[in-house]
Amino acid sequence: MIITPNNPAPNIALSEFELIERVFAKLHPKTPTDIEKGIGDDAAVMSLPAGARLVSCIDTLVQGRHFSADWTQVNELAFQIGYKAVAVNVSDIAAMGATPHSVLLALVLPERLAHEAWLSTFAKGLFHACQLFGVTLIGGDTTRSEHLVLSISAQGFIANGIPAVYRSGAQVGDKVYVSGTLGDAAYALKHFDTETGQQLSHRLHMPTPRITLGVELARAGATAMIDISDGLYQDLSHICQQSGVNMRINLEQLPTSTPLAQIELSERLLCQLTGGDDYELAFILPAHIDPPISDSDTPITCIGEVIANENSEETPLELFYNAQAVTIEHPTPFNTYPNLTGYQHFSG
Amino acid sequence: MIITPNNPAPNIALSEFELIERVFAKLHPKTPTDIEKGIGDDAAVMSLPAGARLVSCIDTLVQGRHFSADWTQVNELAFQIGYKAVAVNVSDIAAMGATPHSVLLALVLPERLAHEAWLSTFAKGLFHACQLFGVTLIGGDTTRSEHLVLSISAQGFIANGIPAVYRSGAQVGDKVYVSGTLGDAAYALKHFDTETGQQLSHRLHMPTPRITLGVELARAGATAMIDISDGLYQDLSHICQQSGVNMRINLEQLPTSTPLAQIELSERLLCQLTGGDDYELAFILPAHIDPPISDSDTPITCIGEVIANENSEETPLELFYNAQAVTIEHPTPFNTYPNLTGYQHFSG
Repeated sequence: MIITPNNPAPNIALSEFELIERVFAKLHPKTPTDIEKGIGDDAAVMSLPAGARLVSCIDTLVQGRHFSADWTQVNELAFQIGYKAVAVNVSDIAAMGATPHSVLLALVLPERLAHEAWLSTFAKGLFHACQLFGVTLIGGDTTRSEHLVLSISAQGFIANGIPAVYRSGAQVGDKVYVSGTLGDAAYALKHFDTETGQQLSHRLHMPTPRITLGVELARAGATAMIDISDGLYQDLSHICQQSGVNMRINLEQLPTSTPLAQIELSERLLCQLTGGDDYELAFILPAHIDPPISDSDTPITCIGEVIANENSEETPLELFYNAQAVTIEHPTPFNTYPNLTGYQHFSG
Repeated sequence: MIITPNNPAPNIALSEFELIERVFAKLHPKTPTDIEKGIGDDAAVMSLPAGARLVSCIDTLVQGRHFSADWTQVNELAFQIGYKAVAVNVSDIAAMGATPHSVLLALVLPERLAHEAWLSTFAKGLFHACQLFGVTLIGGDTTRSEHLVLSISAQGFIANGIPAVYRSGAQVGDKVYVSGTLGDAAYALKHFDTETGQQLSHRLHMPTPRITLGVELARAGATAMIDISDGLYQDLSHICQQSGVNMRINLEQLPTSTPLAQIELSERLLCQLTGGDDYELAFILPAHIDPPISDSDTPITCIGEVIANENSEETPLELFYNAQAVTIEHPTPFNTYPNLTGYQHFSG
């Protein structure tokens, strides 16, 4: 009973999303009516017997995907790993318009990290995030294995009378918005060894979930919302698919940080469209509703509008730069350590 | 940025439990009053603004620990892996006296398993367990990595007026009970290549969480409860530590399946005391309360009593076999694939 890789690789070349969706859709029993939202959104929403509704989610961070595969770096980044594990889950709760409440941690820990220095630094990062985002660690589980894996389940609530914001409510004519700036984390990941990459690394390691904004958007009447974890292109596509709409996105309007504005345009846009780990909110508001402005530290930018899906065979996003049509090849996220060596092509 | 094991192993030889407990206890902020039970039990319990209370937990299954590290076996066991991931979490909810409600799945999937045959079989096992135990899969997350890791977060409810059953309520004079039979899963794990091991393998791969019994015990007034996942010795020790008591356990009373009864005594007792994966309930009832009998398929056996902890330096469990004192060396669980080669010594 030792690891023996004598089982050949699969011969089915479906994307992970498609395949899992298909297999699970086929086997999933009917969702009971007390569950407002089951599989397929940023988080699940259940109506409880009385009072507020519960919002729950789970998310995993693995070495080599969400943080460096370099063990010396893993030690150095212990605080950020703890912080980020909480932040990305809280971000999922925020993207439903819910208020985060608590988290549970499943820690798969390699022997080399099962020592106080690492655990303590990790825990400090985790509790720092808990304090910042108003959540409490209420339980957990630790398992020993060769690689570091963290799964966090987060829970939040939505008050009675306030609708949760799903991916499925976008209507033709609605406006498309994003919070903050885009592409910073992706650039820091791809170009970690440059000055600009270093300057933007806090956006990769210490993302800020938009909790206040998420709650305000639910109250304001947002029709759809998602947090940008897999890149704007893919995450907006999820809204399009689940809402049965397309979108026209004006790339010259993408909010850009000062450091990233200095980068060559096609590289910058590639980061902004296909780089993950932004953890900003992408959301949809009816044209007659102005975005909330109470959280003045978080810029909000209109980047496009929802249009009809007249040909379901087409890609759901129509991209323009200064009114000129743009196509992007292979718009899949590249948010994986170590960096992919093959660049994706971008042509405008 | 590749895996470079140039970071030396830790030099602190604390047990994983102790170390994590210490680090987290040091850093954990005060638990808000709306959380009835935070870190340190089988599952967390929160009072919601109105209505029933929510019970949540998270648990991870990793290759080589909870199921075979042999990749061909992993394929063969896909159904059981899906089933077991749900069952062990539902068992944690049951051990609080709560009714399981829903689960979230975080799947870390190696490329070799990202194909329909494996995913479909896995999902069938998972949904089979969901249906059996009355829970709904309400969300999830998939990540690619080299090893298979599954984290499941489960949620359940306890009705108003019914107390959750913690590890901390055992009182001197209470009786100690277990459900079902003990040691079958451990024997199947250690001796998978024997006829008896094969005969008992369903107990390892397809454990039965004791949901009805758990709920009945909460209503009946159980003072403490835990599900036996790390072996009876360690799990009862958790109750002792958290309740500030000791226990006297009469080993001749341990409930034993017919196949396991044929095994040599010290080997059998070692499986029953230190083998994990039983997923039976160990629970404590005041002497004047009889155990519930409505779930007649689940045998319940009194195996000892709660006694005073007069010397906190001693091990909390006093073991007897037909009134003769028994000691067990290194009573740590051995529930890891591949089987440990070094046997633990048992002397009566």
